[in-house]
Formats: sequence, C-alpha cells, structure tokens
Amino acid sequence: MPQTELRPPTVILNAPQLAENVGAVARAMANFGLHDLRLVRPRDGWPQERAWASASGADWPLDNAKVLDRVEDAIADLQLVFATTARPRELNLPILTPREAAGELHAAAAAGQAVGILYGAERAGLETRDIALCQAVVTVPIDPKFRSLNLAQSAAVTLYEWRMAVLDRPPAAFRGLDEPADQATLLGLYGQLESELETAGFFHPPEKTPSMANNLRAILARARLSVKEVRTLRGVVTALSKGRGRVLEKLAAKKRAEAGE
Amino acid sequence: MPQTELRPPTVILNAPQLAENVGAVARAMANFGLHDLRLVRPRDGWPQERAWASASGADWPLDNAKVLDRVEDAIADLQLVFATTARPRELNLPILTPREAAGELHAAAAAGQAVGILYGAERAGLETRDIALCQAVVTVPIDPKFRSLNLAQSAAVTLYEWRMAVLDRPPAAFRGLDEPADQATLLGLYGQLESELETAGFFHPPEKTPSMANNLRAILARARLSVKEVRTLRGVVTALSKGRGRVLEKLAAKKRAEAGE
Repeated sequence: MPQTELRPPTVILNAPQLAENVGAVARAMANFGLHDLRLVRPRDGWPQERAWASASGADWPLDNAKVLDRVEDAIADLQLVFATTARPRELNLPILTPREAAGELHAAAAAGQAVGILYGAERAGLETRDIALCQAVVTVPIDPKFRSLNLAQSAAVTLYEWRMAVLDRPPAAFRGLDEPADQATLLGLYGQLESELETAGFFHPPEKTPSMANNLRAILARARLSVKEVRTLRGVVTALSKGRGRVLEKLAAKKRAEAGE
Repeated sequence: MPQTELRPPTVILNAPQLAENVGAVARAMANFGLHDLRLVRPRDGWPQERAWASASGADWPLDNAKVLDRVEDAIADLQLVFATTARPRELNLPILTPREAAGELHAAAAAGQAVGILYGAERAGLETRDIALCQAVVTVPIDPKFRSLNLAQSAAVTLYEWRMAVLDRPPAAFRGLDEPADQATLLGLYGQLESELETAGFFHPPEKTPSMANNLRAILARARLSVKEVRTLRGVVTALSKGRGRVLEKLAAKKRAEAGE
C-alpha cells in the first residue's frame, strides 16, 4: 500500500490544562506527520492563542482540532486506541512500549483501520475509566527515580516511534483478524451488558460497580472485536437475558397446567 | 556489566536561548536516567530561575550543570560525541537515527567510554564547525514538510532511545498481564456459556451451533483471560441467566399487587 494512503493516528488529549502544551503537541504531530487532533474538555476553553504561539507554525492540527465533551465521543470512530499512561493500573490490558505500540498502530493503519493515541491531563493523567475504553496501554520507559513526564515530550516520543515505524517497516498484515469495530460500537455492547447485569443484580456491592464494569470493558477492549463479533456478543447477552421470557412462559404454562386450566 | 556502572551520556547544550528549554531538557534527562549537563554560553547567563521552574523537580542536572565558553571545552573529556542536527551538512560524517546513535553510545559506554550528545541553539542549530568536532551526526527523522523541532523534544527523543538501549528489552506485547488461565479453565467457561445459550435458544439454526460456538470461543481465547477473569465472566453468565429468577419473583409480586392481594 502506498504510504500516502496511510492515515496516521488521531491524537486525543483528555482535559489538557495548558494551551502551550496543546501547541507543543501539535508541533510534535507536524514533525512526525500527524494532523488529526481532538481535545476533550480543554481546561481553559478553546481556541487559545497561546496554543498557536507555542506550535511554532504547526497550525493545521490546531486549526482543525475538534473539541468534545467525553472521551467516548472523541474515540467513537476509531478502531484501535491506545492509552498513554505512566502509572501501572489494575486493568488487565497489554502494556506496550512506544515502539511496540507504533508497530501495532502502523500495522492496523496499513490495513486501513482508523487508529488513535489517547493522552491524559498534565498532572492527573488518565482515569481508569478512560483507559478501560482502550485496546492497550502505552508506557514510555522512564526512570522510576523521576517519573514526571512532560505531556508534549511524551507525545514526541510516541509520535517519533510512529514515524520510525512508517519509515522503517513494511506494513505487516494484521494477524488475519477481521477489521475491528469502532469504539462507538463497543460502547453499545458495554452499555447493553452493564444494563443487563445491573438488572440481574450482578454489581454488588453497588460502590464496586465502576471498577467491575471497567474490568469487563478491559477484557472486551483487549479482544479487539470485529463488528460481527460485537453483534454476536450482543446476541449472547440478549439470549441470556431474554431467556427469562422463555422461562417465564414455560413457568406460566406449567402453573396453568397444575391449576388444571 | 552491571547497569549501575554504566555512565550515561553527557548532554551538551550549545548557546541555548531559553532557560525554559534548558529546564525541559533537564527534565527529559531525569526521565531517561541521565544527569551530566553542560552549557556552552547560555544566552541569558546562568543560573536562571526559569530553568528550575520548567524542570518540574528534575533539579540535579541543573544544580550540577557546568558552564563553559566553547564546545571544545565542553566535550574535552568525552570519547564519543554525536551532534544532533536536523539539517544535512556537507560534512562527511555518518548520519544516524536516534536509535542507531543510542546503540553506538550504549556500546561505547558499556565498554567504559565517556560519551556525549551535543545539541544546538533553538533557532540556529549547530554550526558546521561544532558538528565537525563530533564522531557522527544524529538526525531525528522528522517530516520534511515541518522541520522545526523543539530542542527539548529533540532531546526527549534521543534520550528515550538511550534508555531503550540500556533496557534493551525484548518485545513482549503482553508483558504486564496476569498469567493466562490454562485451557481446561477456559473450556469450563465455554461449556457453561454454551449450555446457557443452548437453554436460551441462542443457537439457531441448530446445525450452526458448532461454528457459532467456535466463533465465541475464539473471541475469548484471543483475550488471553486470566483465571480471575474467567471467574468474572462465569459470574456474568450466571448473573444473566439467574437474573431470570429475580425477574420471575418481581413479576409474581407485581401480579399479586395488581390482583389486590
């Protein structure tokens, strides 16, 4: 596939605090051949002049940046999304180096998939619920003695690896899997499953609902489900839940029979 | 050789303009395990409070930074020095990617050599005369459409590669995941799920049962589930199925209420 057809990763910044950092990320994006930038709830609103000032001429990612309210909306159309985080989490997701991540993103993009990288806020990083939406975690291998990694430098390293992957490696086939579903499709499955589990009294104690739901999401996110597989799993959830209806009918019939009707 | 004996590269900044950038470089040095910083004619003199402010706690490279008048003095004791530059030069020096450079620096350092990386001023970069003092040129592979690379981001990328070379980790995409369950455990999950789906009338037409089941198994196999996750998913199947009981009870109660009992 010619390189020109390759769609580079979308960069999603969740709740960025400093407009200067948004500009610095845009500059790194331009350096390494990326252009699609999405901002989830930038702290100081958008647009911010300081972002353009610190981009040093890399205006186009900023000019076309989309602003969204939720991570879910920002990744809805993407088929493979990696979460960048320095802190190890309880979620059972693959942890990739930037190089490994770039290799996977490149292979997926070369197969025509829409891919993205999610970055958290400067101080807080990403929340578990946002990470649980992603297919894997990317961790820059920093010295444990000093873990405070600048947002734009984290982006520079991961996007540099993207470019290295584009330049160095011939696109590899993506392990023969069907094309993965986009995140909106996955969110539909999560919603259905969690709602049915809620009804069935699965989440207890109630305060554990978010972490239990996140763990389930991480399992499903990791599997990189195809659209067809999502449909299958939704059918599974429906069958297991609506099975209730059948059981009800049978029971009612039995009662009627017992009552001699 | 134990890692503790490895002396990481010295970082030399030639004529840096903004103290903020010196601080950002110090931060990247701390992130990637370097500490020896040398400044050649910093534009605004030294020390500069803004450098410490932008280092976000990575004070030690700044506290111990040496200030020198000439590049020659700053690299005098080093045995292998690479010049970082974006522009191709007439000099007949090897041009290395950051990854190749890190490999060579690491090999030299592991052999007990004192090594270093030289960076130019933000706008001007390095002069040919300074580059000519070095053993090779390092060029970050940026998009020719936007070549303006931030000094600290250039440092982040090259020093990240140093750390990757030091860690020299074999790719392990699933590192960090819990140990996967054995196949017997998985088969237990498959059996439970398929039996409940059978009960719920999910498999139709019946002759498609094996292929539908196989597709479900492949999804779960691919996720490389841990024992704990298998347990969770078995709980999910149970909850969705046994939810029937709860629904039955509620419906019965509702009917009793409607009947005015």
